[in-house]
Amino acid sequence: MTEEKKKVSIALDCMGGDYAPTEIVKGAITAARTWNIKIFLVGKKSPIEEELQKYDISALDLEVVQADSIIEMGESPAKAVLKKKDSSIVVAVGLVEEGKAQAFVSAGNTGACMAASLIRLGRLTGIERPAIAALLPTLNRKPAILIDAGANAECDTKMLIQFAQMGSIFSSKVVGVENPRVGILNIGGEASKGNTLMLGAYKALKDNPGGINFVGNVEGREVFLGEVDVLVCDGFSGNVTLKVAEGVAKMLMQILRSELSHDFRNQLGAFLAKPAFKRVKKRLDYEEYGGSLLLGVNGITVIAHGGSNDSAIKNAIRVGMESVEKDVTSKIIGMCEMSAV
Amino acid sequence: MTEEKKKVSIALDCMGGDYAPTEIVKGAITAARTWNIKIFLVGKKSPIEEELQKYDISALDLEVVQADSIIEMGESPAKAVLKKKDSSIVVAVGLVEEGKAQAFVSAGNTGACMAASLIRLGRLTGIERPAIAALLPTLNRKPAILIDAGANAECDTKMLIQFAQMGSIFSSKVVGVENPRVGILNIGGEASKGNTLMLGAYKALKDNPGGINFVGNVEGREVFLGEVDVLVCDGFSGNVTLKVAEGVAKMLMQILRSELSHDFRNQLGAFLAKPAFKRVKKRLDYEEYGGSLLLGVNGITVIAHGGSNDSAIKNAIRVGMESVEKDVTSKIIGMCEMSAV
Repeated sequence: MTEEKKKVSIALDCMGGDYAPTEIVKGAITAARTWNIKIFLVGKKSPIEEELQKYDISALDLEVVQADSIIEMGESPAKAVLKKKDSSIVVAVGLVEEGKAQAFVSAGNTGACMAASLIRLGRLTGIERPAIAALLPTLNRKPAILIDAGANAECDTKMLIQFAQMGSIFSSKVVGVENPRVGILNIGGEASKGNTLMLGAYKALKDNPGGINFVGNVEGREVFLGEVDVLVCDGFSGNVTLKVAEGVAKMLMQILRSELSHDFRNQLGAFLAKPAFKRVKKRLDYEEYGGSLLLGVNGITVIAHGGSNDSAIKNAIRVGMESVEKDVTSKIIGMCEMSAV
Repeated sequence: MTEEKKKVSIALDCMGGDYAPTEIVKGAITAARTWNIKIFLVGKKSPIEEELQKYDISALDLEVVQADSIIEMGESPAKAVLKKKDSSIVVAVGLVEEGKAQAFVSAGNTGACMAASLIRLGRLTGIERPAIAALLPTLNRKPAILIDAGANAECDTKMLIQFAQMGSIFSSKVVGVENPRVGILNIGGEASKGNTLMLGAYKALKDNPGGINFVGNVEGREVFLGEVDVLVCDGFSGNVTLKVAEGVAKMLMQILRSELSHDFRNQLGAFLAKPAFKRVKKRLDYEEYGGSLLLGVNGITVIAHGGSNDSAIKNAIRVGMESVEKDVTSKIIGMCEMSAV
């Protein structure tokens, strides 16, 4: 019997996100061309096939899977998941549940992606609550992981310890950071700083449970300057961090654009410096990172940004593929078993 | 009897901040030259007088007040304030307590400034907890107010309502925004979003208590795009917001600088666009805003950034002066009396 590396299969929601299905299908095609993977394109058959006709896909392993409905961005997640069993999100997660695919990728309703993953795939034994691990740009070339980025508005100490452990696994296995530095998001560096939750988390993490490399409290400023690889926090502060970062970057770029169009000298300067601006954009862009991972469910779920274009989708598929290849789920199961001993 | 506008007096801690006393004294001199105010320069006499000798101060109303010790940045605030009664912070706050000055300004240990203000000036009757109101740059020309920016790591609903009211007074009286839009920092726009604290605050604020102009939940992104004038939150999230914003701006500027030095074309572009970059820096810089106000104590306390230069100090003095002239404290007392009825 020859041992053969099993081909990774991705279940891709083609109806979710601002640019669905055009950019989603385009991203899938680039991904399938780049890596030797199978992609299930889940959604309404006719618009998906219309997009596919634009490309030569003869050599690619693509399969369209019909889903009759769509969960819209504004819908109440849990309700929609239970009601719309024929939606692209639920059908795609179902492919992972049935073992046909190993990872689910979507740029649609984040809450619905989480709810569908929780309901259909289930929580991993021993995990208190699944969490979203988002990738943040930093001054380093490797992004930092923010966990939880918004799945749990309220947390307790035990949850934060598991976030630290899961984040550490994600950082070392998928991002490729050796012995990732784990910090707690706090409002000062000293052990005595913060609210009750963070004080408890500090106490629990300071002895490096489960072999994580805990470096202490970190302020919101330091993560962007590259001082930690994993930033642990409750989902409320994490979501605030993510959105403030997005808002500040957007504001700065708009102010820069408006000031650069001020007069001819500045316009010329801006024209000449265009390559630099492009590189800056590339280093900051969520497109490059590809999406957040929902950690703690029994399967791989990648949540891409609602505004994902083809390149962001391709990278989200890459995150899913690498998480499958590096067997992130088994590593988390192992961590839970070790902690339980 | 002629009615005369009383000259504003400022008690300035000359020993606090990274560039004390040089930049602090320089800022005081510019402020005293620009506005008709009196400034008490509090700290060690000989270094302050050494700085003063560099300038022609004959026409200015400056008075050096000796303080023998300094509260350092790392010291435990409450303990230091109780122990070091001869520190520049405690002596300067004492001048406000005695009625010799109307506002206290410092770039020193933030916790110590708060503790000294609370202990010596006291809380305003009816105020649950004082809060720090920080100014955030936005796409609008007028900054938004973030309250609480870090005084209270843990908050309850009643505190948030008062933050909304105090922030509203600060925005309309000092920043000059008519009928300021007040939002809650949250992780989604819907009324059902957020943690227990924010759900409670939304419910309490939705009927616009005390005539504030409540516009609902706001995500961290939107405040920088200018969609609210006052952003209400607990001190933990507020401090995270402030520091994330600082970190992202710093990261972006560093990335931009490194990419612009990439080759000759980009360097030339950067050189030509220099005036635009300068204007961007000016629009974002905390120097322009001058410091945060501690609201809810019986007096005006302005907390400047630890890295304040002369221009930041001048603007911090301006914030103190305007808060005195616009009688922010009485307005807050009035608000408390109205709410108590």
